[in-house]
Order: sequence, then C-alpha cells, then structure tokens
Amino acid sequence: MEIRADGDRLWHSLMEMAKIGPGKHGGNCRLALTDEDIEGRTLFQKWASEAGCTIRRDTMGNIFARRDGKNQDKDPVLSGSHLDTQPAGGRFDGILGVLGGLEVVRSLNDHGIETVSPFEIVVWTNEEGARFPPSMMGSGVFTGILEQDEIYKNQDTGGITVEDELLRTGQLGDVPCKLFPIKAYYELHIEQGPVLENENTCIGVVTGGQGSVWTHITLFGQGAHAGTTPMKYRRDPMMGASRIITEMREIIRNHSEAVGTVGRLETYPASINTIPGSVFFTVDTRHPNEEILMQINQDLKYVVKSVCSSEGLESEFKNISINPTVEFNQDCVATVRHSADSLGYSHRDIVSGAGHDACQVNHVAPTGMIFIPCEGGLSHDEAENTTPEHVSAGADVLLNSVIASAGA
Amino acid sequence: MEIRADGDRLWHSLMEMAKIGPGKHGGNCRLALTDEDIEGRTLFQKWASEAGCTIRRDTMGNIFARRDGKNQDKDPVLSGSHLDTQPAGGRFDGILGVLGGLEVVRSLNDHGIETVSPFEIVVWTNEEGARFPPSMMGSGVFTGILEQDEIYKNQDTGGITVEDELLRTGQLGDVPCKLFPIKAYYELHIEQGPVLENENTCIGVVTGGQGSVWTHITLFGQGAHAGTTPMKYRRDPMMGASRIITEMREIIRNHSEAVGTVGRLETYPASINTIPGSVFFTVDTRHPNEEILMQINQDLKYVVKSVCSSEGLESEFKNISINPTVEFNQDCVATVRHSADSLGYSHRDIVSGAGHDACQVNHVAPTGMIFIPCEGGLSHDEAENTTPEHVSAGADVLLNSVIASAGA
Repeated sequence: MEIRADGDRLWHSLMEMAKIGPGKHGGNCRLALTDEDIEGRTLFQKWASEAGCTIRRDTMGNIFARRDGKNQDKDPVLSGSHLDTQPAGGRFDGILGVLGGLEVVRSLNDHGIETVSPFEIVVWTNEEGARFPPSMMGSGVFTGILEQDEIYKNQDTGGITVEDELLRTGQLGDVPCKLFPIKAYYELHIEQGPVLENENTCIGVVTGGQGSVWTHITLFGQGAHAGTTPMKYRRDPMMGASRIITEMREIIRNHSEAVGTVGRLETYPASINTIPGSVFFTVDTRHPNEEILMQINQDLKYVVKSVCSSEGLESEFKNISINPTVEFNQDCVATVRHSADSLGYSHRDIVSGAGHDACQVNHVAPTGMIFIPCEGGLSHDEAENTTPEHVSAGADVLLNSVIASAGA
Repeated sequence: MEIRADGDRLWHSLMEMAKIGPGKHGGNCRLALTDEDIEGRTLFQKWASEAGCTIRRDTMGNIFARRDGKNQDKDPVLSGSHLDTQPAGGRFDGILGVLGGLEVVRSLNDHGIETVSPFEIVVWTNEEGARFPPSMMGSGVFTGILEQDEIYKNQDTGGITVEDELLRTGQLGDVPCKLFPIKAYYELHIEQGPVLENENTCIGVVTGGQGSVWTHITLFGQGAHAGTTPMKYRRDPMMGASRIITEMREIIRNHSEAVGTVGRLETYPASINTIPGSVFFTVDTRHPNEEILMQINQDLKYVVKSVCSSEGLESEFKNISINPTVEFNQDCVATVRHSADSLGYSHRDIVSGAGHDACQVNHVAPTGMIFIPCEGGLSHDEAENTTPEHVSAGADVLLNSVIASAGA
C-alpha cells in the first residue's frame, strides 16, 4: 500500500516561506545570497533540524539536511531544489522541491518509517542565475560541470563576487563542494509550462530536458546627439538590436519546438536625447534536439553579423552557457511513473522546458523529476500559482519514489 | 574696428572645467545638481567674481553673474548656457556658452570697455534633462514655460526630487526665478551636427531651431519562463518593442529632414531566462516643420497601437514634452551675422537640430545663437571635440554681438 504525505502541512510551509522577500505583486524576490535568500535558508534549516535532520553546508553554500537510514554505509537518496528566486519570481519554482523534500522527512517521521538508505534534502545555491551567472551554479560545481575557483569570481551587476557573498552571509560551509555517491536523486517541481493544465493531468513524469544556449550580444555604434545627427550618418546600435530581435523570432518560428527570448536589453548611455553608443542584450534559446539548437545558434550568429554589416556596427557574440539536452535515468523515471500510477493520479511523460538542478545531477547519479501543473503555465513571474491539491499529489509521488529507492 | 577675445584663455578655462566630473573616455559626467555639477558651478562663480562680477542665484539655481554698465537702469544683455552634461557627455556642450560669456567679461575688462547696458553671464540649471526631466528646466521656469512648483517635484531614477537636490547642494537661491526685462540674449554653442565641418565654415548664424517631441512608451505583456512557454502562447513586449522601433525608423525616413531616436530601453524584470512582463522605452523625434513633426507623432502612435494589437500587448503612449519650432529675433540674427562678417570669419545661416536654453529665452526676449563646428558632428558623446581656433572665433563673434547690443 502506498502511504501519503501531509499536503496541508506542505502548503502551509510554502506559504510561510513566501512571506520572506515578498514581491510587489504576490510573488517573491529572493535573489541568490541576498539577505532575503539567507532568511529563507535559515528558516529551512530550522524546520529540517526540528524534523531531526543533521545539517551540513559545503563550500558553495549548498545545504544537505540528512535523515539517517538503517544502514549508514549505504549511499543516500537525495531530493531537493533551490530557495532563490527570480527578481519578480513566484512562490513555488524551486521552493516546492526543497519543502517537498522536507515533507518526505516529516511524513517518514509521522509513519515511523526508517529507510534502509539515508535520505538527504538538498538546497542548491543560486539555481536561477538571475543575480550571478550562470544558473544551476551550486549543483554545477557539485557535479564537476563548473569550476569552484572560477565561479567564486563571478560578479553581480554591482561588482560583488559569489565568494564575497558566501563569506558575508556565512554560507560558505566547511565541507568541500564535491560529488559523493548518490543512490538516486528526485526533484519535485511545477511544470512552468501549460501542458499538464491544458490536458487536465495531475503528474508529469519527466523523461528529460531540452537543451539551452544563453548568449550575450553587444552591438557597438556611435553615440551622438539625437537632435543634430541626420539619419543617414547614424550608426545606431538600438536599430541593429531591434532588427536582430525581430529576425531571431523568425528563426525560432521556423522550428516548431524551439523557443527564444530576449530578457534583458540595456542601452549605453541611457539618455532620451542621445543615440546609444552601444546596446547589450541577452538571448535564451532552447530546443529538445541538440543539433537543431546549435543550428539555431549559428543562424542567430549569422543574423547578428549581417545586420551589423548593413548598419555599420561592430558586435560581440558570446555563448555564456550551453546546456545540453538531458535524458533522465530510466529506473528513476519508471519509479516516478509507478508511484503516480499506484497512487491513482493521472500522469503523462513530459520533457522539461526549463533547466533544473536535476539536469546537472543527472550527469553523476540516477535522477528523476516530478512535475505538477501550474496556473496558465506561468512561471518566472509573480503570478506563478498552483493548487494545494496538486502540491499534495506531487508530495505523495515524491515520498513514494524516495521510499522505493531508499528501501523501507 | 572689431575687438578680439582671448581665445587661448577661454580654451584654458574650458580644459580646467573639463577636469571636474571626468568621464571614462575623455569626456565629462556632471549630471544636473550632482556634487560634480556643483563643483563646476563653484569654479565658475570663483572665476566670475575674480573678473569683478556680482553673483546672484534664483530659486531654480540659475546663476546670474553681472558686470555693471554705464547705465544701471538699462535692461541687461545676457549670454550663457549650462554647465551640466549628459551621463557620457562632452567638454563643450553648454560649457562653451557659459565660459564664452565669462570671456566676454574678461575681454571687456582687458580692453577697458564699459558697456552702456549691464551685461550678465547666466548659468541655466539642468539644460540636459538627463537626470531630471524635462530638459531646459532652469530656463523653462525662468521664462514661465514651466511651473516651478511642478518642476520641484520631478524625480531622478532614484526618487530624489529637484527641490531635494537644490536644497542639499545649497543652490536654491534667494532671488525668485522670474523673468526680468532683457535687452538681448546670445548663446555660443558647438553645432552638435556635421554641417559646418562638412562645409568648412567657421561660424553658424543660427536662425531658429527644429521642434522636438519626447515620448515615453511602455508595452505590457505577460512575464513568463523563457524555457517552458511555447512561442505561440507568448505576449512578449520585447518583440513588440523591436517591431515598433524598426517601423519608427521607416516613418522617420519618409521625411528627409526628420530624426528619431530610442535612447533608453528597459525590460522588466531584467532576467536572461524570463520573458519580460513589460518594456519601457523613450522616443525623441524632431523636425523643422511643426506640422510634419506632429504628423510623425501621430504615425508613431498608430504603429504602437497596431503592433500591440497584433502581439496581444497593452500600451501606454505619453508625450512627455513637445518643444515647438523656434525662430530667433531678426535683429539678433543680423547682429551675429554682421559680427562674423566684420571679423572676417566664414559663416552661413543654420537651423539648430538641438534644443537650447536660447530657444526658451526666445519666447520672452530678443535672442540669437552662434554655432562653431565640432569634430565629426559628434555631441552627447565623450568624444565630442572642437578646435581652439573655432572656440576663439566663436568668442570673438559673441563679444562683438554683445557690444553691439549693449552699446559701448
């Protein structure tokens, strides 16, 4: 017989956590390693300790909250996600995965279950990458995909480094951030897309993730007075950027499963009556097929070159991160599918549109993910929402998947 | 016989002033009412006092440095401009007009000339409008075009008001900012465009200025996750902005003398992996014919509406300032032309592409302007440059125009 988590308790914890770093429109702003992020982490550690976990923190600030198993020599089963948010982020993205892990511990306690393998909840540092690039930073260093020494130097827009903030906030732990053997890793997350809701399905059994490329593009023209410089003499990078962004969308639209986004654009100097000397913008492109993704990247590069050549601009095109497509472990995927089935929840296989810490962990340990629907498919927005019923179902599936892997 | 100013002295003063609030690339950053701006104003007041002027400051921080005439009851002749700069501005825009006025006083002293009418150098507060909108603020209130009570409340991007800064910096003077009778007003300025240089002409006799419209446009869409939201479900304001900006240029290009610029664009929230919920940008459009200018404004408004309708966006379109076209006083224009002629400098009539304090003063007093060439027509850029020879010629024309109007 399948056991159940306490969905109400989990919902209540989610709402408590959402009080920290409130946004302007009902969401949250807890950028990585800000005081708000630390306040959230501290609350989590309090709750995990109260549930009997032993806390340790590594040199990237990743937090591991351990519940011992019958056999301490066995590799632990892990579950977690992140507590940091986008600047105008939601209450569930990441937080559900961490507090879902906490609910697993609380439910195991309730039912008096001692698993064979130990179980650890993990909070990965800076998944969003919104303050410090790149995203999935803590899990990236843990899995050896990123170099800690390099990452320490990364700066936010104010010139503060990751290492500065780890030290200032006391989050730089005493355990080296280094891979240890993991029996299985599960991450519960909102879908962040519209598929489950549209199909009225409760659980997404995540089989893998699409690849993504992040690009920084800077166009250099000639700053000049907006009133006195005839149009024909201008080398205006804002005009180049507008053309490139419009053409980028055409490239993306030629591939039915592709997405492309310009999330940030900045002019320099930003003055109403000055033609910008340069314009910086970001491009995020994704596709489930790696070959097509890299073709899109090439096409975009070509458009930048050709627009700049016709506008008399110089350009810099930097792929700042390339995340390959991901296929999750077949056993973990089957375990999630089986748990949803046994619990009587409607489910379907799904490919993740977003990157997740699970995509990094998948490189080094058997990994699976569980999605629940979110309202209107919205995420990375303060209006992000889901229901207590879906949260409850997701926690049930996570709990049973963990028990299946850890043994009881 | 025409007398001459001391061009070397003026050039030296310009270079001294340029040391205050240095930019990163050889230009200046002295945004209105910042500590740097105050340092520049203080230096000017020291120099003007040393040259025998009496200083007074009005409630908008405008500075008047007076050299008495033979007849104190006569309306004074004024000459000046501004000391504030763009965020990445040049060493001459505005400063030449103020220090040109100072050079008039110094030259009159050298030659022992007592003019019949008094002469006053004026420093107008916040001509650029780069920190606090609108531009030509000090001269705008002085001439009654702007309301001081309203202007006091205007904020910079940090929420600091004009009144706050006038008080903090001690620039809020004891004389009410109110028009007084002016016999004539002259302003010496770099052209900020390429015409004089291209035509190898030393002096521009400015007959008037083109009109300008400043517009704030905000597009509202739906913020969402960049990886998980299919293209067809998006309402992406960055895509709308790109299309509008590209189409704006087409409208502008349909009118040979028109110019149009997007100097600032901001996405919210500015995150690489989030579709922006809203995008804000500025548009500066200008044309020498007011009817055509307003037609362009209507066309732009229509493009915003139609693009937003096809992209599923909402929009806000606000004309934040409309500066009508300007025709300078025929006597002042003739005086400038005659001075250039008598001094043997090549000259041509020219329409100003930029707005100037002179355009405001022109509403209330006989006004003329003198342009000198600048390198590559560049301005509002740190690379802004001119030559000691042109500066010297400009000062000569200004000096002789002032003497002609003030009587000697």
